[in-house]
Amino acid sequence: MAGNSFGQLFRITTFGESHGAAIGVIIDGCPPNIALDMDFIQEELDRRKPGQSKITTQRKESDTAQILSGIFEGKSTGTPIALLIPNEDQKSKDYDHNKDIFRPSHADYTYQTKYGIRDHRGGGRSSARETAARVAAGAVAKLFLKEKGVEIFAHVSSVGTINAPNLKSDQVGELLEVRESNIVRCADPATANEMISFIDSVRKDGDTVGGKVSCIIRNCPVGLGEPVFDKLHADLGKAMLSINAVHGFEYGSGFAGSEMRGSEHNDIFVPAGEDKPVSTITNFSGGIQGGISNGMDISFRVAFKPIATIMHNQNTVDRDGNAAEIKGKGRHDPCVVPRAVAIVEAMAALVIADHYLVSGL
Amino acid sequence: MAGNSFGQLFRITTFGESHGAAIGVIIDGCPPNIALDMDFIQEELDRRKPGQSKITTQRKESDTAQILSGIFEGKSTGTPIALLIPNEDQKSKDYDHNKDIFRPSHADYTYQTKYGIRDHRGGGRSSARETAARVAAGAVAKLFLKEKGVEIFAHVSSVGTINAPNLKSDQVGELLEVRESNIVRCADPATANEMISFIDSVRKDGDTVGGKVSCIIRNCPVGLGEPVFDKLHADLGKAMLSINAVHGFEYGSGFAGSEMRGSEHNDIFVPAGEDKPVSTITNFSGGIQGGISNGMDISFRVAFKPIATIMHNQNTVDRDGNAAEIKGKGRHDPCVVPRAVAIVEAMAALVIADHYLVSGL
Amino acid sequence: MAGNSFGQLFRITTFGESHGAAIGVIIDGCPPNIALDMDFIQEELDRRKPGQSKITTQRKESDTAQILSGIFEGKSTGTPIALLIPNEDQKSKDYDHNKDIFRPSHADYTYQTKYGIRDHRGGGRSSARETAARVAAGAVAKLFLKEKGVEIFAHVSSVGTINAPNLKSDQVGELLEVRESNIVRCADPATANEMISFIDSVRKDGDTVGGKVSCIIRNCPVGLGEPVFDKLHADLGKAMLSINAVHGFEYGSGFAGSEMRGSEHNDIFVPAGEDKPVSTITNFSGGIQGGISNGMDISFRVAFKPIATIMHNQNTVDRDGNAAEIKGKGRHDPCVVPRAVAIVEAMAALVIADHYLVSGL
Amino acid sequence: MAGNSFGQLFRITTFGESHGAAIGVIIDGCPPNIALDMDFIQEELDRRKPGQSKITTQRKESDTAQILSGIFEGKSTGTPIALLIPNEDQKSKDYDHNKDIFRPSHADYTYQTKYGIRDHRGGGRSSARETAARVAAGAVAKLFLKEKGVEIFAHVSSVGTINAPNLKSDQVGELLEVRESNIVRCADPATANEMISFIDSVRKDGDTVGGKVSCIIRNCPVGLGEPVFDKLHADLGKAMLSINAVHGFEYGSGFAGSEMRGSEHNDIFVPAGEDKPVSTITNFSGGIQGGISNGMDISFRVAFKPIATIMHNQNTVDRDGNAAEIKGKGRHDPCVVPRAVAIVEAMAALVIADHYLVSGL
Repeated sequence: MAGNSFGQLFRITTFGESHGAAIGVIIDGCPPNIALDMDFIQEELDRRKPGQSKITTQRKESDTAQILSGIFEGKSTGTPIALLIPNEDQKSKDYDHNKDIFRPSHADYTYQTKYGIRDHRGGGRSSARETAARVAAGAVAKLFLKEKGVEIFAHVSSVGTINAPNLKSDQVGELLEVRESNIVRCADPATANEMISFIDSVRKDGDTVGGKVSCIIRNCPVGLGEPVFDKLHADLGKAMLSINAVHGFEYGSGFAGSEMRGSEHNDIFVPAGEDKPVSTITNFSGGIQGGISNGMDISFRVAFKPIATIMHNQNTVDRDGNAAEIKGKGRHDPCVVPRAVAIVEAMAALVIADHYLVSGL
Repeated sequence: MAGNSFGQLFRITTFGESHGAAIGVIIDGCPPNIALDMDFIQEELDRRKPGQSKITTQRKESDTAQILSGIFEGKSTGTPIALLIPNEDQKSKDYDHNKDIFRPSHADYTYQTKYGIRDHRGGGRSSARETAARVAAGAVAKLFLKEKGVEIFAHVSSVGTINAPNLKSDQVGELLEVRESNIVRCADPATANEMISFIDSVRKDGDTVGGKVSCIIRNCPVGLGEPVFDKLHADLGKAMLSINAVHGFEYGSGFAGSEMRGSEHNDIFVPAGEDKPVSTITNFSGGIQGGISNGMDISFRVAFKPIATIMHNQNTVDRDGNAAEIKGKGRHDPCVVPRAVAIVEAMAALVIADHYLVSGL
Repeated sequence: MAGNSFGQLFRITTFGESHGAAIGVIIDGCPPNIALDMDFIQEELDRRKPGQSKITTQRKESDTAQILSGIFEGKSTGTPIALLIPNEDQKSKDYDHNKDIFRPSHADYTYQTKYGIRDHRGGGRSSARETAARVAAGAVAKLFLKEKGVEIFAHVSSVGTINAPNLKSDQVGELLEVRESNIVRCADPATANEMISFIDSVRKDGDTVGGKVSCIIRNCPVGLGEPVFDKLHADLGKAMLSINAVHGFEYGSGFAGSEMRGSEHNDIFVPAGEDKPVSTITNFSGGIQGGISNGMDISFRVAFKPIATIMHNQNTVDRDGNAAEIKGKGRHDPCVVPRAVAIVEAMAALVIADHYLVSGL
Repeated sequence: MAGNSFGQLFRITTFGESHGAAIGVIIDGCPPNIALDMDFIQEELDRRKPGQSKITTQRKESDTAQILSGIFEGKSTGTPIALLIPNEDQKSKDYDHNKDIFRPSHADYTYQTKYGIRDHRGGGRSSARETAARVAAGAVAKLFLKEKGVEIFAHVSSVGTINAPNLKSDQVGELLEVRESNIVRCADPATANEMISFIDSVRKDGDTVGGKVSCIIRNCPVGLGEPVFDKLHADLGKAMLSINAVHGFEYGSGFAGSEMRGSEHNDIFVPAGEDKPVSTITNFSGGIQGGISNGMDISFRVAFKPIATIMHNQNTVDRDGNAAEIKGKGRHDPCVVPRAVAIVEAMAALVIADHYLVSGL
């Protein structure tokens, strides 16, 4: 229980179900005097909201955030910031057929068994709708980090077996423009087109497909991350793995690094020059050494499984453990990653903001 | 700061540097009346200790654990259990050459910059020696979980590009016997031989190589894991990523799952039978759905980068940021994974024990 | 920062300022299948709300709670319960005269200095209005504890130097009836009358006065409370001291116990009989021994200072540190304790509910 | 469970029983580069150790602290500091008569019932011996605070009904000298003599008596303390109430404040002058307003009950709930407060150090 909070000093607590009155988040520990740009917060939510394009769910939610507290004359006051997002498109009856049946690879069975009760409508608390609250909170974290000069950039680096080429991390401005110019949110235009076509074909099959999101964090100071358990990448990993549908996390050289030799993997230090700090030639360390940021770009990748809701009928069991069939219907995303980009960035921002405060930097 | 604790109700705090007086751990929250089998704790430590075989470091430490508290007539009392492991083989002078130089891909630079002071001898707090304390604590967690019937089994599933075949998770007893019969700790004998030869050749090159450890957790009840941030796999991920040299974590279908379609990835539920609970045909969910254990085997994989200490001279910088050269010397592992098996199991046990208490099961 | 949460497993986070859009609370960790009786929650809020009687502030707030999440078909689901209380009577202009002046013995000066910004309207976050959120959360905790048979009873035991006689803790039902029959919420009718007259005279003087609230918790099992820092009375103490205007906490024999001898203070154990557990003749231990509940009634007392807002002009300083005068105006309570009874009970319920979950009982 | 840690960023975890191998503490989060003056740490322990004078227990323990980690060349490194205090005077057989009997007003009954097992020797974990670990950790906190200019001073302000006069808080240096010149640790010499005679007479009666410790904290900056639950006085209160035998805590005006009127209780602000910050004429707020330090002296008082171990035979029950008699024997303090002064100061230092880090000051 009590697992709905994240962070130690920059700490969020989310609440709300897919078909309840509202979802929302309390941000506790946001430093005072941060300009709380509500337009920016809304833009971030818009990047995650459903119904954006033909390759996302057609469910319509404006996901309009209201601010209830922690603000005075447009600025944070150091007191808890409560953000509320009312639920709108609640066709709860659409879910009556799920009431007593466990959808395969969803959380229906585990929630029912753990709690003895569950809100079956749209997945209830287990719905990815909860991540809207994270994006709203992450937007506030970004506003704090912007003052520190930190940049966070994620994009869709793969859909199924279609992989984007590695990107240059020193061109975040350009990449961002390209990413937002296509509905799949891949920073490589050619790959983006390929991905969009593929997702569209998967959608027509009534099926879903997985993908990966890659993220870069630039301009972190040296010193974020606390040995030995709260290593920066360990907290980034937990943050990402807590996002719905995530099955894997790697940073720096990642899984490929397990195939390398030390002599090729070691990041050789380069002397500091004028206006230039110590840096490394390669960056297999992914910007983190000994769990602490080393000033180089932080890079990581997040693997998302295909969404479990498909338009096919499937065998399953009901609440009594008997065989049953679940119908393929509803409104869902054929691929989660285009909308997940905003979530990955939000969780990254929350981790970095928290470690900023914890480290005292 | 204060990042040296792990777990919420079954909570450990480790201390100690590579070349200080001792390392150790306090376990706070271990339930009372668990028989604290000191022989078992020592066996677990022996699986991690240096100097075991020709493919591990030749540094000699008996890693003998003493128990200082929390025990009465051989049983846990519910009060903090302190375990102490004195440091023995402290050739601290061997490290004088590192005093003012930052070793590539080590934590020297980040520690020095973050703290303004560091114990350079053997890496100080950033040394993987700290993980001995985790193994001791994990052994206590295992003793608790044994009473619940939970089994945890890890082995080396890859070294460099040499991969072991997937194992049958219902044969843990057999696999364990095979694993302990070879020095690389791979549960497939043929692959083990190949790995050992390869590591030996890497060692002769004065180089190091990475690898992967795979882990299976059997007989968990349905209901471990707390939505939404403290999902069971998110806590397992953080636990594994906090281990030295880990660069990646995946569970269930993992990164490969990002290439799959929903129609093939969904785990179809199978009706409960006599003495048989609900189960699933496939297990791409890795035993966890919605962040909560579903009663199937929990499976995950951990990627370790190659150890940074190699027997080659390398360019680097010194404390003033000037160019320097680091000599290739010292006593280190050519490959970390054979000793990491015990660490992965220990951290897994700590996560599961903690979630047992949190869930109230 | 991030000090707006309380509790470990039954954990609340409150938000909101006196004159913002709303105040509220998220309860994380409430067990599932508790009937969330909204009428009861509202009754509890009504006991705390302003404008109840001639001896409380005349500020009018209906303090109507809305539930936003964590409920399904009238029952808790184990997911976060969000309760929202919109602010209504926001005569914010009434506070313009406070904008640049620090009210004596209020939090104006410390908030301004700590945060560099503050919502001066009605005290902002430092307003006792925040305690309405605690009362709503405490009501949910009470609904959980009711199923365990635990009873919590507080009343006003002193106003100024007027003290109520000690009460019999085995007559909670009767006492409760008496308490609710008078506006000062003292369970002794004669004393109540005296207190009411006194508060009324203080009010006419434009002044305020302090008082004490006494609380009894009945039917706790043996075993609540965690050695050594999270002793049950230490957590009760922190809970009470976190309430606005509280300056003291004592349990069992309290401060008077410091004047006693061991031979008179020791609570002699009495053998268990049929259907009767071990008990003690006296209860100077206040139901807690070694930090753990012993099954006897838990008793404690809470001292409230007089409210700082008085109807007199007072000297003070402004934001630039210069001499200034604050006018005596506004709508405030002459004595906080009649409304504080509900807050003390709420915080007690939150502590006991949390320790129930932590102890695994 | 897991209640053996205190603090959020300057965080301690203690371990050990009265008659185990050792007690000790891990300090996690101590800032780096603090000179760890082992002589000072030992002096602090000496002020708490048993066998100091005729009015303390005659049990002999040198309470010599060893440092195991977190230190390099005499300075803290930012990594966990482990301090170990071996147990010496373990006449465990002396406690055989307690094995199956519950001592009145001790923790025997509650520990046995909660855990189903207990180390009966000398109270095991419930022994006040645990506070030696707190004193060692508090000494480190003091070394950190000394660099910030913070002074902490406690003394025995009452024994039984003998009360010392209020002290001038601006003469800490002098008071300290007086306090250490008498064995009862009261800063008023005349009262000290009276107290000593009284304790000696109580000791001869084979009885015990309670008392109070008063504490002043000087030179705290404005801004320590986190609204709303982690108010500075709430954390001080919890810290003090977690000390063995404490039954009450009050700060500033305390319980007496509940009898006052607002017009006399309000602390009028005085303009800042040259080199002089804003201050207040009176200090009924005890240096804390809205839970945040206001720069004035922080003052509080702690009430200790009489120690439960007396030299009289007492009726009680045994483990089966049957009537039994406990013999009056053993070596114990007639009055706890002379030794408790060091503990109160240590816990105060830990709270202030933690809030320093949390506040980012």
